Amino acid sequence: MANSKYAYVRNFELPDSLLPGTFMLFRLDGHSFHRFSDQHEFKKPNDVRALELMDHAAKDVMTEYPDIVLAFGESDEFSFLLRKSTTLYNRRESKIVSTLTSLFTSSFVFNWPKYFPDTPLQYLPSFDGRIVLYPEEKYIRDYFAWRQADTHINNLYNTTFWALVQEGGQTTTEAHATLRGTFSKEKHEILFSRFGINYNQLDARFRKGSVLFREENMTKYRSLFSQISSEELVATDTTLIESDKALEDTMAGSEASPTKGETRKAKTKKTKQRQTRIEIAHCDIIKDQFWDARLGIFSE
Amino acid sequence: MANSKYAYVRNFELPDSLLPGTFMLFRLDGHSFHRFSDQHEFKKPNDVRALELMDHAAKDVMTEYPDIVLAFGESDEFSFLLRKSTTLYNRRESKIVSTLTSLFTSSFVFNWPKYFPDTPLQYLPSFDGRIVLYPEEKYIRDYFAWRQADTHINNLYNTTFWALVQEGGQTTTEAHATLRGTFSKEKHEILFSRFGINYNQLDARFRKGSVLFREENMTKYRSLFSQISSEELVATDTTLIESDKALEDTMAGSEASPTKGETRKAKTKKTKQRQTRIEIAHCDIIKDQFWDARLGIFSE
Amino acid sequence: MANSKYAYVRNFELPDSLLPGTFMLFRLDGHSFHRFSDQHEFKKPNDVRALELMDHAAKDVMTEYPDIVLAFGESDEFSFLLRKSTTLYNRRESKIVSTLTSLFTSSFVFNWPKYFPDTPLQYLPSFDGRIVLYPEEKYIRDYFAWRQADTHINNLYNTTFWALVQEGGQTTTEAHATLRGTFSKEKHEILFSRFGINYNQLDARFRKGSVLFREENMTKYRSLFSQISSEELVATDTTLIESDKALEDTMAGSEASPTKGETRKAKTKKTKQRQTRIEIAHCDIIKDQFWDARLGIFSE
Amino acid sequence: MANSKYAYVRNFELPDSLLPGTFMLFRLDGHSFHRFSDQHEFKKPNDVRALELMDHAAKDVMTEYPDIVLAFGESDEFSFLLRKSTTLYNRRESKIVSTLTSLFTSSFVFNWPKYFPDTPLQYLPSFDGRIVLYPEEKYIRDYFAWRQADTHINNLYNTTFWALVQEGGQTTTEAHATLRGTFSKEKHEILFSRFGINYNQLDARFRKGSVLFREENMTKYRSLFSQISSEELVATDTTLIESDKALEDTMAGSEASPTKGETRKAKTKKTKQRQTRIEIAHCDIIKDQFWDARLGIFSE
Repeated sequence: MANSKYAYVRNFELPDSLLPGTFMLFRLDGHSFHRFSDQHEFKKPNDVRALELMDHAAKDVMTEYPDIVLAFGESDEFSFLLRKSTTLYNRRESKIVSTLTSLFTSSFVFNWPKYFPDTPLQYLPSFDGRIVLYPEEKYIRDYFAWRQADTHINNLYNTTFWALVQEGGQTTTEAHATLRGTFSKEKHEILFSRFGINYNQLDARFRKGSVLFREENMTKYRSLFSQISSEELVATDTTLIESDKALEDTMAGSEASPTKGETRKAKTKKTKQRQTRIEIAHCDIIKDQFWDARLGIFSE
Repeated sequence: MANSKYAYVRNFELPDSLLPGTFMLFRLDGHSFHRFSDQHEFKKPNDVRALELMDHAAKDVMTEYPDIVLAFGESDEFSFLLRKSTTLYNRRESKIVSTLTSLFTSSFVFNWPKYFPDTPLQYLPSFDGRIVLYPEEKYIRDYFAWRQADTHINNLYNTTFWALVQEGGQTTTEAHATLRGTFSKEKHEILFSRFGINYNQLDARFRKGSVLFREENMTKYRSLFSQISSEELVATDTTLIESDKALEDTMAGSEASPTKGETRKAKTKKTKQRQTRIEIAHCDIIKDQFWDARLGIFSE
Repeated sequence: MANSKYAYVRNFELPDSLLPGTFMLFRLDGHSFHRFSDQHEFKKPNDVRALELMDHAAKDVMTEYPDIVLAFGESDEFSFLLRKSTTLYNRRESKIVSTLTSLFTSSFVFNWPKYFPDTPLQYLPSFDGRIVLYPEEKYIRDYFAWRQADTHINNLYNTTFWALVQEGGQTTTEAHATLRGTFSKEKHEILFSRFGINYNQLDARFRKGSVLFREENMTKYRSLFSQISSEELVATDTTLIESDKALEDTMAGSEASPTKGETRKAKTKKTKQRQTRIEIAHCDIIKDQFWDARLGIFSE
Repeated sequence: MANSKYAYVRNFELPDSLLPGTFMLFRLDGHSFHRFSDQHEFKKPNDVRALELMDHAAKDVMTEYPDIVLAFGESDEFSFLLRKSTTLYNRRESKIVSTLTSLFTSSFVFNWPKYFPDTPLQYLPSFDGRIVLYPEEKYIRDYFAWRQADTHINNLYNTTFWALVQEGGQTTTEAHATLRGTFSKEKHEILFSRFGINYNQLDARFRKGSVLFREENMTKYRSLFSQISSEELVATDTTLIESDKALEDTMAGSEASPTKGETRKAKTKKTKQRQTRIEIAHCDIIKDQFWDARLGIFSE
């Protein structure tokens, strides 16, 4: 019995290799997550459990695929940067898009009970993914700036909106009307004057999103720094969390203030002690500081 | 604060719409499932639990996407046919590929404990997917024939191989050597003479794979046939399960014997009683009978 | 000296094969031919010399590429149908598009002096081309109907417009105003009542465009019909030229009148005497008659 | 009469925009030019008339399309570099490929009689074209190095081969046998010792191919250098033509000798006097000198 008489159907499968030598930006979005978050009673404006679950899934994807050098997540979306020299699956688009989306989904569903122990899944979550190619670093920088600026804009709006609704007693219609046409400054003002909320002191996770990156090849330095206490490490972590004022400055086109020598030194110290592993931070990725300290993201 | 200065990066996202008016064949494969099946101690040569879980996930995908009119699964792969007129996600390739793969994965992981209550997931399963376009029905027929012939060839080999190992006491090396160069007939003979196994009486699920299809618009006929007992339905189901001899005849190029009038009549009767729902069968899809009885698969 | 250190740049060349088993419709348009026709003083509304030169170039392309089974031209554009089984240049899109466009251009420039003996080329003409895939015959029928309907609409407008200008003494602005919102019937009426022009008696080339097709495998019939005079052949040619009234009926959705037995018989007779060669006609390709008589266009 | 019932066929036309921000390398090759050159009795190993006609056509293409910043030709092929920011035809691949190929062909055919006044075209020449995208300058450098190294290798072989045949009395079979396995050095030796030919003194056009580039924005310097005689300009042109020894060194991986200060100074002087126009040179484009002097090729 020969199967070969049918095998010609394979000829319809056309190659879909992506241009070599370009960065792949893989982006993944939740499918109908507005409804999904309602059904599973996500907290408004942000649900830490859901965000941490997203981070967990993203970290699993990065762990499995070493050619992913950076990831950024906000809300129900995550972006992954693959190094431009990657030959993952011979750069076949469908293979990469589907496999990464699948693994993320797998982790999201598998780990759901860890983050939502009292909320069983009502129905199956799913995600869609796509790859966009970028030929130069500057576009990658701008891509991530675009996503983080989006995080800021959305979160400031949502935070103010839900304060008006949950604490201010407005209907959602009223809250939208209150916010129509307001600038960032006015939203900050509403939050502070009416609800006593200093936006810049809210959880950086909400304001900055999640940044996942690798800290590599640092083991040789470990002994040198073994005297640093874990308290210090925690402390330096906060150096990665910056105020939105600087963010707004950056996006408005003004020059970012030069990074103070002390801050950079502290971070470098911390960085050096880290072993090769994936870090999650909620820091600014619009200004140069993050990138200058991690030249490995673009190195081949 | 304006986000618009970065939004130009969207211009790098290129359209990827698939040619209208052509059938989409979406195929999905387990990622490294050889290792996955070893780690989770799948039974050899077939693990019913795993196959039923695959069917479950495929059915969830078909339920969510009405434009899928047929699916076929074997081992760790599943193929889905989308009607040629589908405008799902504007026929965007990455969107369709990633979303369908994601939903399948989601169901597979979510339902794992139902089928493997005593075998916790050791690590995250994932799948890859791709779409192949076919411009004509004949290619679709041959595509599914190709997959089912593959099912038969692999299953006959594996069944004989594992009989030699598990019951015949051969090492895997010896078993491969025993089977080298043998034809179908000889494998049948080994199974029957040495192990008392009549291959054609093994579970049709293993020999034919799983066929998922819709039975639609039959409600108007329901009252007419309400007198048919459920026993009769179960009985007629078996008419869908045929011997591999016919399959081999078909694939060898010889003419399939004409479908007997009685059989066709019985099936039609059963079909008409069914309400709109997704059916799972383990029947021949190489010969005309299956397709002649379901012209709706290709109708628009 | 090794060239191999640079040869890696070939890896950036990605495959661009077109889906097998689908019709290729190659369309070619003059580049800035509005200006080109002005500069070379083409006659308005139609310049026979230019149209015949286009036909000549199209015929050269068909002669060189046997997989082109049909072509249709109007104004400065030409469409070519390649059989769906063609493996020309392994169905590589850029190769086919560029080569066909190049050969057409080559012929157009080379043969220019034959058709414009007194008008030297003022500057270099060029064309652009593209391929559109169609999975079914019905789309091919509709594609050609689309182009021929376009020919009719444009030519009726242009003929009336230039009559108003050249014979009616209107400015071009006035002529556009006169025609604004008019239906076909009114344009016919203007032509007839004001200028004594019966549109349906104008050169079929202008009203129908040019249809190029192959008449094949007829050599065996030649001796049977050798007594037919060339006068008769010319006469039967006119059976291919039909009135626009029927065309308008067809496009308006009404049923085309059945082809009279006599007409078909006459054409068949003529057809049979022809040897394998490329014919140019100015006939209807919207109704069934043309296609019914040339089943070979779609046969493989 | 409505054409709209057919217009849906346009939906099958899919977008084919090329990735923004990447260099387009458009390459064009003669179609079956081996036969074409035989039929039109091109001189062996090189026919100056044919090469100059190719240059002429390439220059016409560059003149028409300002986004082409560099071109390189050898034998029956030509490569064109489009700046990475080009938005020509919205970066639609088929449109660009077909139009550029068409214009080149148009010029080739139109200008044929100027270069071959005594050799009428026997049949229609044609070319095929394609676009390859490159994300970085280094790949562009290597692409052009690849083509020029190819020119050298082919020309050295062909020159020696035809010397053996035309002057050495060998058959073509014998000549191939003589050259089998020989290195560059041995071919140089055969040419010199047996035929008195110093390869490095042959026409640079044959050894280096043709390089077309723009010299822009130099008008402001013109008055300063107006005292330079045309003799000096011709003289400095030769500084662009270098020996193949250096080329071979470069390709073999050894460092190119540093450009002498005098030479660079002389070229700069000449360059500054040039007005904005397309230059044709037969110079090295593998080493840095050419590129260092024309930074505008990569500037946006």
